[in-house]
Amino acid sequence: MTKNKIKAGIIGGAGYTGGETIRLLLNHPQVDLAFVHSRSNAGNPLYSAHADLQGDTELKFTDTILQDVDVIFLCLGHGESKKFLQENTINDKIKIIDLSQDFRLGESVNGRTFVYGLPELNRADIVKANNIANPGCFATAIQLGLLPLAKAGILKEVFATGITGSTGAGQKLQDTTHFTWRANNISAYKTLSHQHLKEINQSLKQLQSGFSDAINFVPWRGDFTRGIFVSSCIATDKSLEEVKKLYKDFYNGHPFTIVSDDTIDLKQVVNTNKCLIGIEKEGNKIVVHSAIDNLLKGASGQAVQNMNLLFNLEETTGIKLKSIAF
Amino acid sequence: MTKNKIKAGIIGGAGYTGGETIRLLLNHPQVDLAFVHSRSNAGNPLYSAHADLQGDTELKFTDTILQDVDVIFLCLGHGESKKFLQENTINDKIKIIDLSQDFRLGESVNGRTFVYGLPELNRADIVKANNIANPGCFATAIQLGLLPLAKAGILKEVFATGITGSTGAGQKLQDTTHFTWRANNISAYKTLSHQHLKEINQSLKQLQSGFSDAINFVPWRGDFTRGIFVSSCIATDKSLEEVKKLYKDFYNGHPFTIVSDDTIDLKQVVNTNKCLIGIEKEGNKIVVHSAIDNLLKGASGQAVQNMNLLFNLEETTGIKLKSIAF
Amino acid sequence: MTKNKIKAGIIGGAGYTGGETIRLLLNHPQVDLAFVHSRSNAGNPLYSAHADLQGDTELKFTDTILQDVDVIFLCLGHGESKKFLQENTINDKIKIIDLSQDFRLGESVNGRTFVYGLPELNRADIVKANNIANPGCFATAIQLGLLPLAKAGILKEVFATGITGSTGAGQKLQDTTHFTWRANNISAYKTLSHQHLKEINQSLKQLQSGFSDAINFVPWRGDFTRGIFVSSCIATDKSLEEVKKLYKDFYNGHPFTIVSDDTIDLKQVVNTNKCLIGIEKEGNKIVVHSAIDNLLKGASGQAVQNMNLLFNLEETTGIKLKSIAF
Amino acid sequence: MTKNKIKAGIIGGAGYTGGETIRLLLNHPQVDLAFVHSRSNAGNPLYSAHADLQGDTELKFTDTILQDVDVIFLCLGHGESKKFLQENTINDKIKIIDLSQDFRLGESVNGRTFVYGLPELNRADIVKANNIANPGCFATAIQLGLLPLAKAGILKEVFATGITGSTGAGQKLQDTTHFTWRANNISAYKTLSHQHLKEINQSLKQLQSGFSDAINFVPWRGDFTRGIFVSSCIATDKSLEEVKKLYKDFYNGHPFTIVSDDTIDLKQVVNTNKCLIGIEKEGNKIVVHSAIDNLLKGASGQAVQNMNLLFNLEETTGIKLKSIAF
Repeated sequence: MTKNKIKAGIIGGAGYTGGETIRLLLNHPQVDLAFVHSRSNAGNPLYSAHADLQGDTELKFTDTILQDVDVIFLCLGHGESKKFLQENTINDKIKIIDLSQDFRLGESVNGRTFVYGLPELNRADIVKANNIANPGCFATAIQLGLLPLAKAGILKEVFATGITGSTGAGQKLQDTTHFTWRANNISAYKTLSHQHLKEINQSLKQLQSGFSDAINFVPWRGDFTRGIFVSSCIATDKSLEEVKKLYKDFYNGHPFTIVSDDTIDLKQVVNTNKCLIGIEKEGNKIVVHSAIDNLLKGASGQAVQNMNLLFNLEETTGIKLKSIAF
Repeated sequence: MTKNKIKAGIIGGAGYTGGETIRLLLNHPQVDLAFVHSRSNAGNPLYSAHADLQGDTELKFTDTILQDVDVIFLCLGHGESKKFLQENTINDKIKIIDLSQDFRLGESVNGRTFVYGLPELNRADIVKANNIANPGCFATAIQLGLLPLAKAGILKEVFATGITGSTGAGQKLQDTTHFTWRANNISAYKTLSHQHLKEINQSLKQLQSGFSDAINFVPWRGDFTRGIFVSSCIATDKSLEEVKKLYKDFYNGHPFTIVSDDTIDLKQVVNTNKCLIGIEKEGNKIVVHSAIDNLLKGASGQAVQNMNLLFNLEETTGIKLKSIAF
Repeated sequence: MTKNKIKAGIIGGAGYTGGETIRLLLNHPQVDLAFVHSRSNAGNPLYSAHADLQGDTELKFTDTILQDVDVIFLCLGHGESKKFLQENTINDKIKIIDLSQDFRLGESVNGRTFVYGLPELNRADIVKANNIANPGCFATAIQLGLLPLAKAGILKEVFATGITGSTGAGQKLQDTTHFTWRANNISAYKTLSHQHLKEINQSLKQLQSGFSDAINFVPWRGDFTRGIFVSSCIATDKSLEEVKKLYKDFYNGHPFTIVSDDTIDLKQVVNTNKCLIGIEKEGNKIVVHSAIDNLLKGASGQAVQNMNLLFNLEETTGIKLKSIAF
Repeated sequence: MTKNKIKAGIIGGAGYTGGETIRLLLNHPQVDLAFVHSRSNAGNPLYSAHADLQGDTELKFTDTILQDVDVIFLCLGHGESKKFLQENTINDKIKIIDLSQDFRLGESVNGRTFVYGLPELNRADIVKANNIANPGCFATAIQLGLLPLAKAGILKEVFATGITGSTGAGQKLQDTTHFTWRANNISAYKTLSHQHLKEINQSLKQLQSGFSDAINFVPWRGDFTRGIFVSSCIATDKSLEEVKKLYKDFYNGHPFTIVSDDTIDLKQVVNTNKCLIGIEKEGNKIVVHSAIDNLLKGASGQAVQNMNLLFNLEETTGIKLKSIAF
């Protein structure tokens, strides 16, 4: 454990992942939150944008970027991170954890290269990295449900359906995030064409180099705020016990990904950094259910997990969170 | 019953109350829906704005106002109805039912005067009227919970809390109708200063002329889409049985307002035109609970009820609706 | 249209499908609801079990079965319908519509044979039938999403995920219907082994005799009360336009099943008897989305639709319902 | 801070407050959770009853009560705590924190006397106490909204409405906690007769000895799982600024109770130990809104807060929790 606390800054602190990163870092025992940048909110207290922080901190948003920090979290929209790093000079010694999709497929900027920050896949590289491309939310849930099969070289075509909470759509007011429309409603979007399929395929090929089958993925909008639940159906000759063993071996030593022997449900993981996995088999098909909180293991929680690894802290520091449970 | 069907038009058909009025009139056995006006949607099918109407009608929004109709429903925002009637010529023989608050307090326009359209209070006047000012949603729920006490001349200061579904806030995207914020949330707004207090006081004084006590009303935003539930606390010397008798006598012959002897809950009335009333007593205080669907008895349903009365139809025609129940 | 109204009785009137059938028949212009049987509630008003019926009817539950009715709806649990018909004598002239799964696979009792009551598949047989086995809720949604492909002989292996409201689990208190657990939660159950697969396969083989591929179906419990949404993924060589044409041709003349050219969502059909279908294509896969209200098109609404057909009424009589919309 | 960790046990660990206490103690840096007692679950892992704990602990429920602990939390039903302490011998040196209502009104058992554990009212006594009667959930929210007025001697008759999440009704399956009934529903219960009124009056009289006016309280069942929101209306001659000053002074130095200058909403406090207070004035009436998480500040969180005080720890240790926020 480091003697001195890590000094951290956040860019784009007024959005959902920004707020969630603030919440985590404020309670992190090894972190000093040095600044939270938000052009539109500069000068206002953090709780002006994140009302739940009232009573927790009097820190204010800033419009300047401190350079004497150890790590910066980029909580910006897709496309905005690259732009930000092009337009702003960030001290080379500062590590970057980017939550957008801008650097997940090997992109670089100003000489900075990024490791894809899925600890269950890339932990050995993450601990040596300077810059992290934090995975997407659906990408995290789907990959964690498939990686052990790819590792064993037996992954075939996948048919997956996933459902996501409204926070996945961000803070912007949209027809599909209007309460009146979304309450008690279900709908599909980006059918078979979700942008996360690219990073998923990249990871699967990293483990099973010849993999070229389709990941047929249908995303649904759910009528809840937090969480992702995915069921993936794959043909296999293996027995259920053999498959479970593959998964348990693969995730052995990974504190947040748990292969359950019971049926799983979404609320087991809401407001935690966990990924819970349940596996069932019928005939020659297995169905792998995976559940995460899209803002934590699917975004800010995984970002802090990556920070812990970057700075050689215990991987779970500050992110063993009380679940909502109910 | 009229031989020929009533020809009806709707102004402002793309909003929530417009849509709800369309739904009711399409299924009304004595109505032909002649036109639905919406400047922003002219030329598009009704289901382009109200997706649930797919398969029900191929009618399109229009930007012209037909003058050979019997009745026009104004489903416009507050302030817009008066403006519309000032700027457009409407044949004098056409009856107007206005769902805004523009004419609820005795206002008139172009010689048109309006009867306040609460049938339980003003049915005798409504059947003779040409123009109706349809009551507000909270106003309907609160008044129906208080009128019998005013009629008996025993209404005193009222302490009421009411909760409303998100449809009460309309279609516009707002921070307080963002799904992420509103789901599982409760908040107060317009504390002790809701605009409906004026029409409530007007009605109460109509029955109890000297009434001058406060209606202390705290409105809450609820985490559901449809419905209003109000609990009103009032001091009284009467016994519970005496009070219940006042209410049952008052609403005798009014088909939609039901005084229950059981505990009541909101979903008993959701997707219906009913108002359900439950009364309890403890010490010298009674609490009157009243529940309505804000878009039906609180808006479009009551508007059609008023239309039925205006045209001498059975009061319940076309608005005996299957409740959502669950 | 019949001169005299149809006299109808309901067995098992205290449950969810019983209540929903009551709601529909009370408002059906061609039906007299003669009796509602419920042993546990005999003597009590219907609204003692279905609180929303307060103000609608003073009818009471009975424990006797009137024999001078035209049709009886069996709203009993699975296994209970067969038992009921074995233990009770029902006049041969009375038509039976059974909402359980007891007679969906060709079973008979006391010489009564049953037609599988999916009008879009079997309307010609239904109009001539005496007894109807009403389809299951998931079965209805899944079949309506697949029948046109089977009719064209091009149905292949199906990968479907469906989500259902809590009313699908019935009235009984269970851990998975506890509000605290189910709110904001998602979970899978009966993975790849749902009991409706049998009737689905029976129907598909009726149209595509050699069909022997798997219907891989993962059912999810949703955090809402009403509705089913299914996304089915199937490989095909046809173009999207060709597929859409198959569907539109197949459902031409069927008033409740609508093939939409827009994206669809669950609430378009909640509290209606409709099935809405949306189709998308990417690569060589189509995804068919289908949505119904599980208690209406998936149970009581379809039962009344079948009654209309049995008695030669217009198919939509009494079941053109105002949707919840919001 | 104590050198050695506090050894804690829980009686009644399978219920909601038991589970919540487990969640808090597992993450508390100064506590060793020594045992969790549950007769019905003895021998099973904690996550068999609290599925979200999977991956957090392999601890099992026990049916024996360890006597070498420092503190025992009684998470039993009302009436069960007294019975438990009568039937079981607990080492005198063990401190007891009882979450039931059995000892809130001065009751004692086996020579054990209890301090009413509302830190904002009784912190000086709590730090010297051996046994704590932890306040009720509604009692906490209502009192924190009224105490400063009582302290100033200006509290008058109160008209309060409060809404509670389903977890307030406990784990038992009931009609009013059936998802199908409770979703999107609102209802009143125990109108003007809630059992918490006794402890509320006791506290108010402790500060304003002559207080004898009524607390007219209408509790509502909400359609969410966690949280309590109360609006209390009281007449006063003071200005809004004067009232706010009373509140801010009263809660100065109390880390969890925050007087906000902005409008407040329930989700600001869900999954935290905070109480948020907002005050508005109109005419001669103030309305005090107060919001808590019923399972945390209203139960287990406050219990751990009391433990911290009993053992001379920083009051916030282990209960600075990440809110659900969305």
